[in-house]
Formats: sequence, structure tokens, C-alpha cells
Amino acid sequence: MGYIDSVIIENQAEITNAIDTVWVALCAALIFFMEGGFALLESGFVRSKNAMSIIAKVFIDIIFGGIIFYIVGFGIAYGSSNGWFAFDIGISENDLGLGLTVSNQLFWFIQLGFAVAAISIVSGALAERMKLWSYTILVLVFCGIMYPMVANWVWNPSGWLSVSGFNDFAGSAAVHAMGGFAALAAAMVLGPRLGKYQKNGKANSIPGHNIPLAAIGCFILWFGWFGFNPGSTLGAVGNWDLIGKVVTNTFLASAAGGISTMIYTQFKYGLIDITMVINGVLAGLVSITAGCNVVDANSAIII
Amino acid sequence: MGYIDSVIIENQAEITNAIDTVWVALCAALIFFMEGGFALLESGFVRSKNAMSIIAKVFIDIIFGGIIFYIVGFGIAYGSSNGWFAFDIGISENDLGLGLTVSNQLFWFIQLGFAVAAISIVSGALAERMKLWSYTILVLVFCGIMYPMVANWVWNPSGWLSVSGFNDFAGSAAVHAMGGFAALAAAMVLGPRLGKYQKNGKANSIPGHNIPLAAIGCFILWFGWFGFNPGSTLGAVGNWDLIGKVVTNTFLASAAGGISTMIYTQFKYGLIDITMVINGVLAGLVSITAGCNVVDANSAIII
Amino acid sequence: MGYIDSVIIENQAEITNAIDTVWVALCAALIFFMEGGFALLESGFVRSKNAMSIIAKVFIDIIFGGIIFYIVGFGIAYGSSNGWFAFDIGISENDLGLGLTVSNQLFWFIQLGFAVAAISIVSGALAERMKLWSYTILVLVFCGIMYPMVANWVWNPSGWLSVSGFNDFAGSAAVHAMGGFAALAAAMVLGPRLGKYQKNGKANSIPGHNIPLAAIGCFILWFGWFGFNPGSTLGAVGNWDLIGKVVTNTFLASAAGGISTMIYTQFKYGLIDITMVINGVLAGLVSITAGCNVVDANSAIII
Repeated sequence: MGYIDSVIIENQAEITNAIDTVWVALCAALIFFMEGGFALLESGFVRSKNAMSIIAKVFIDIIFGGIIFYIVGFGIAYGSSNGWFAFDIGISENDLGLGLTVSNQLFWFIQLGFAVAAISIVSGALAERMKLWSYTILVLVFCGIMYPMVANWVWNPSGWLSVSGFNDFAGSAAVHAMGGFAALAAAMVLGPRLGKYQKNGKANSIPGHNIPLAAIGCFILWFGWFGFNPGSTLGAVGNWDLIGKVVTNTFLASAAGGISTMIYTQFKYGLIDITMVINGVLAGLVSITAGCNVVDANSAIII
Repeated sequence: MGYIDSVIIENQAEITNAIDTVWVALCAALIFFMEGGFALLESGFVRSKNAMSIIAKVFIDIIFGGIIFYIVGFGIAYGSSNGWFAFDIGISENDLGLGLTVSNQLFWFIQLGFAVAAISIVSGALAERMKLWSYTILVLVFCGIMYPMVANWVWNPSGWLSVSGFNDFAGSAAVHAMGGFAALAAAMVLGPRLGKYQKNGKANSIPGHNIPLAAIGCFILWFGWFGFNPGSTLGAVGNWDLIGKVVTNTFLASAAGGISTMIYTQFKYGLIDITMVINGVLAGLVSITAGCNVVDANSAIII
Repeated sequence: MGYIDSVIIENQAEITNAIDTVWVALCAALIFFMEGGFALLESGFVRSKNAMSIIAKVFIDIIFGGIIFYIVGFGIAYGSSNGWFAFDIGISENDLGLGLTVSNQLFWFIQLGFAVAAISIVSGALAERMKLWSYTILVLVFCGIMYPMVANWVWNPSGWLSVSGFNDFAGSAAVHAMGGFAALAAAMVLGPRLGKYQKNGKANSIPGHNIPLAAIGCFILWFGWFGFNPGSTLGAVGNWDLIGKVVTNTFLASAAGGISTMIYTQFKYGLIDITMVINGVLAGLVSITAGCNVVDANSAIII
């Protein structure tokens, strides 16, 4: 190989890094923006005097969740692992063994988006019930330890679930299930009164909620999901075909979720309940997140 | 040509696909987000009791319009055409003859954005007038048959307008005119009372509308338009100079639209009507959409 | 060098232009969207009867500021300079001597985003106080002459501050300080009554403000800042490592700003004031903007 060829090949590696960085940085920004979606969706669904508390919770998710995920969380998730746990402080400058084509810092930022999305699902379930500083403790434990441990198992190249070939493309298990588990745990602590505020029942029984606000929230989440799922490729070079597939499946699942809810509310209640259609769309998005890289389009609609 | 050169050239093709995929996927996400803009703009301009119905219509645009455009619309638009019509089911895996550097699925997703934008313009014109399920039928017919037929004529390489050299860069004719024609058709069916609710007159005569909500809608649309127009290049490699031109023209037309409306309302009514300025900006954006790749910047301001 | 190699190298240059164009065009769109954030943040913090005037001001920033920055501002900033001033009309087609890998027009669009962000900070400080047409004059002077002159000094390759090695990565001095100076100048003209409306005091003393609206504004600004700071690289090729660093620092500064304000309000007032947390996050973002390419992550938190 001559000198010119080796310069060209080095340039190609640099170009690949640049493309993947553009892709991941912008997808991560979209994922980050989803937090605005959570804040508005939930504050649109509660009584307006509680909207401020919901919004405060989302800010706590981001600012405390983000800092703790920087200080300890990321090291637990992606440090050198014994299969169950790792421990490094801050963002390592070493190769993480993940075959990344973006910098560790940018990888940290997109992972932060996933971690904070997980805790924001909790914040939705706890809605109007928990004191802000107690909630802050929960966020610190969740983003600093719980979530990173699961991430370690699933995504760290030496994590036990990762080794066993478990497919969790955009993190449905780690993100959504973890969020759900934490919500369940919190609900048990807080006692049965939480049951009163079931997601779908809430819209019908609590007056004063603000549908346009919830709709903005839903659109921001929907928009952000087109960063969340395809951004999980962590790079575009070599994945361009996959990205098209993921985007298509993400859309189809959300549309199918919305349509089936709309038909259901028509038959069940004799009218279209837009609150439930919003929840249907989001349920479709959550359902597709785990498998969006492997299922084909027709299955996506059914899911 | 040696072995190393052929590997390098293959890598360059892969890299080109990756860049164009990043570009189209993110522009398509911006275009998709415009639906949120339509929902908020329109729900900000109607009485608040009708805001929910407007929002429901935008959801119908997306979920029903999207599914039908997947099942039959895309095949009609981009299948093998006799110049007027094509018929394929779903998204073909074959080369569509468009010289695409992105996957057919991603191309479908950005086309879906254009189709749904077209029907959302209808949804604005019909505002508070049509039952939701009747509207759903309209959406199915529009996104499943009407819009795809026009797209076939204009963009399918064997479509008759395409063959005759008609310039419709970001789809002003197909998207906006089709939207307008459908609105007109619907208006004739619904009768003359619709005339009462002319776009500009509405803001002055119907109390209770919510300007901050409309402003969010306008900013989302404006933001999305910077995906809509430059994204119509369908790729960045070979188009980087054109993208700068399109972005500049898009901005200048919107600003000129806003300025001329602001001066007009000052002279006509003695005050600045922000509702009309919002409409002026959007009118500027609509006007520039068809020609944004050919006109120069000074013409853009005049347009 | 053989023929094939020279074709490959030419393609690589084209590819670099394409990547950097994708990056700058999308970051510029995010920066543009920040205007929506300013409009909502500020209209959420004022009495609702003044919200319309705030929104009108942001529209004036964009449409008048944008047009004048096109006609004269850009030429003053980036034309051939004697170190203090330049004068060209419109966007030059010549090489600006900045080593750009994007077109001059796209560079104009991202610079416009910076200029309009600067004037929007003024619009916040003047809030409810200035007549719209007087404000329009201020915008024309600011975006047409004042801001471009400072940009000339700082960024034009022959500007005197640029020559002396002053670091102003994403334009904290030019954007934020200029905005602040102009606000101060305007305040002195308008007299001492403005002092009544100090940024933090306002939230507590003026009833009727709308926190969810302000929160949307804050999330849009936060989102846009992930275009603002990393987009200031003006290209991704050769900067991929830097982009990760900038994104991380931007996030950490905002989170630290939010956390310290939240703790402060708890100690000072015995409760968490979400209005001040929003301001704390934004203060963190503003603080990091100047130095986000040179400071390390731990300093970012302290800043």
C-alpha cells in the first residue's frame, strides 16, 4: 500500500467518525428533548395546581440524574465489568470495548438520555404523590446505581445478559422495564391510594387537565423517538439500511397503537377519546422500542 | 484499478449512503414534527372547546394517513408507472429508478411527511366543521389515492409531469396545491357557511383563541420547514451548495412574508396584529417551497 | 498520484463538505428554534396580557433582524476588514478566509441564529416596556451594525480581537455580552422603573404567569443549545472528539446551574422555586457558552 492510499484510508476513518458523531449528537439532542415531552404530557394530564410539581420532577430527573450518571453511573455501566458490576469514576478515556466510532463523552450523553428517559417514566407514575426531595433521592439511586447495573448486564460487552445474546436494541428492557419496575416499587412504598390514578382512568375522572399541553408533549415525544430508536444504532456508517427499517417500524407501531385505541374508545364509549389515543400512540412507541431492529414491518403494525 | 482502490471506492459509496441517510432521517423527523405545529397553530386559533377536535384531526392525519400511505399510497406513487398510475403493495425492495442513496423505507418515511403535511392543510381549512369519522374517510382517500396519484405524475420517473420537466422541488404543487384543492372540494360539499371562517378574518372575530399556543405552533412549523425544503434534496452529497441556498431562500421568504404583513396591518388597522404576522410568515414559507432550489435570494424576498 | 487516486481525493473533499453541511444546517435549525424558546419562556413569565407583545418582539427579532443581517450585517461582519469594520452588500460568493467547508449562505444562516439570539436577550430584558416600532428600530441597528461590528472584531480573520487570540468559541462575548450591553443601554434610556422587574424577582411578584409555558420555552432553549454550542465548530470532520466534549460540558454546566439554584431556593425560601431553577439552568448554559471548547468537565460543573 502506497503513501497516498494510507492517507486516504486514514481520512476515511476520520470521515466515518465525523458522520457517526453528527448522527449520534443530533439523535441524542432529540432524545434529550423528550424530557420536555414528558414534562408537558404529564402536566397536561394532571390538575393545573400539580403541573408545577410534575415539571419540577422532570427537571430533577435531568439535573440530578445527569450529574450522578456522570459521576458514578456511567462508570458502573461501562467500566471494566465482572459480568454484574463495574466501578469507574467519570468518563473513561480508554476504549470501552464497544467498537464505538464516537467519543466516549458523546456516548455518555446519549446513554444519559436513555437513563433519564427511564426515570421520567417513574416520574409519570408517581405524578402528584411524592415530596420533591424524597424524589431526588430516588433519582440519585436510580440513575447512579440501579439503571447503570442493568445497563452493565445488557450492554457492557462483558455483561451477563449481553454475553448470552439478549436482544435489546433501543433498550426497552433496560429503559422501560426498569422504569416500570421502579414505579411499581415506589407504588408499593406509597400504598394503595396510587391505584386511583391509573393512567387511562385519570383522564376521565380528574377535571382541569389541558389537552393542548398534553398534545404538545406527545408530539415532542413522538419526534424524539425518531432520535431514540434509530439513534440506538450509535452510528450511521454501515447501518444506513437498518436506520430506514427502524424509522419505518417506529412509525408504524405508533400509528397502529393510535388507530386501535381510537377504534376501541369508539366502540367502548361511543366517542373518540383523544387522551386515550395519545396514550395509544405512546404505548405503540414503547412496544416497538425493544425489537425495532429485528421485526419486519407487518409485525410492527401488529405489535 | 488495484484491490485497495476498489475497497476504498466501495467504502466511499457506503459513506455516501450513510451521510445521505443521516440527512434524510433527521430532516424527515423535522417534517414529522411539523404535525405538532399544525395541531398547535390551529388549536390556538379556534375557540378552546374546539381545540380538542382540531388535535384529534391531526392525529387522524398521521395515524390513518400514515398506515394507508404505507399499504397502498406509496405503491401507487412510486411503483412501476404507466405515466398516470402505478400499483404495488407496501414498500418495494426494488430500485425505484429515482437514483436514491437512502433505503426505500427511509424514502417512504420522508414522503409520508409530505403526504401528511398536505392533508393537514385540509384539516386546517375544515377546522371546526366535520365529524371525525367522516374526516377519517377523507384522509384515507386522500393519502391512499389522491395524493399518491399526483405524486406519481410529478415525481415518479415515468410520471407524465415529471417527464415533461415540471419543477416542483419540495412539492409545492403536490403538497400545498393538493391540500388546497382538497380543502376546496370539502368546502363545496360542506356548503357556504365555511366562508365565514376565512383564515385571516377568523382571528379577529372569534374570541378565546390562544396566541402563545399558536406561536408555539408557528415556531415548530418554521423549524420543521428547515427540514422540509432542504430535506427535499434527498441527500447531502453533491448538494451541499444547494442546501445552503435553499435554507437561505426559505428564511428570507418567511421573513419578508412576516414584514410585509406587519407593515400592512399597521397601515390598515393602525396596530400590529401578531395573528396576521404569523400567517404572513407561513404564507412566505408556502410560497417559497416550490421554487426554493431555483430562485435567487433577492427574488426569494419578493416572493 | 494516479487518476483514480485524484478522483478518490476529490470525492473525499465533496464528502467532507456534505458532512459539514448536514451538521451545520441541522445545528442552525436547532439554533433558529431557540427563538421559539425565548418567546415562550418570556411569555410564560409575564402577565398574560403582555404575552402577545413579547411574542411580537421575538417575531420582530427574527424577521427584521434576519433581513437586515442579510442586507448589510453579514457584509460588515465578514467582508474584507481593516480590523475594525468591513462593508459588503448581501452574501459574498468569494472565499471569506475562514476555511469554511460549508457554503457562505449556510454560514450566513448559522450566524444569523447567533445574531438573533443576541437581540432576543434584549427582548427579554425590555419585556413589557417598549413600543413595538421603536423596538424594531433597535433591532435594525443592533443586527445591522452593532452586532456585526463586534463579530468582525472577534471572528473575522482580520478582526483585531481575532488576531490577538481571544477565545470566544460559541460567541459568549459577542452574543451574550452584546445582548447584555444592549439591554443595559436600553434600560438606561428607559429609566429606573425597569429595575422593578429584575429577572428573578419578577416571578415572585407578578401573578398570572404560566409555568408550563415557561417550561416548554426552557426545554426548547436547552434542546437548541445542543445545536448552538457544538454547532459552533462549523463542521464535524476533524472535530468529532471536540463535539463530544462540548456537548458534555454544555450539559454539565446546565445541570450544575439548576442544582445550585434549587439548593439555594430551598435554603433561602424553604421551598423549591421552579421559576428560579429554570433561570439557573439557563444561567449555566450561558456561562459555559464561551469556554465550552477549552474547559474540562469538572470545571464545567463549577462554572
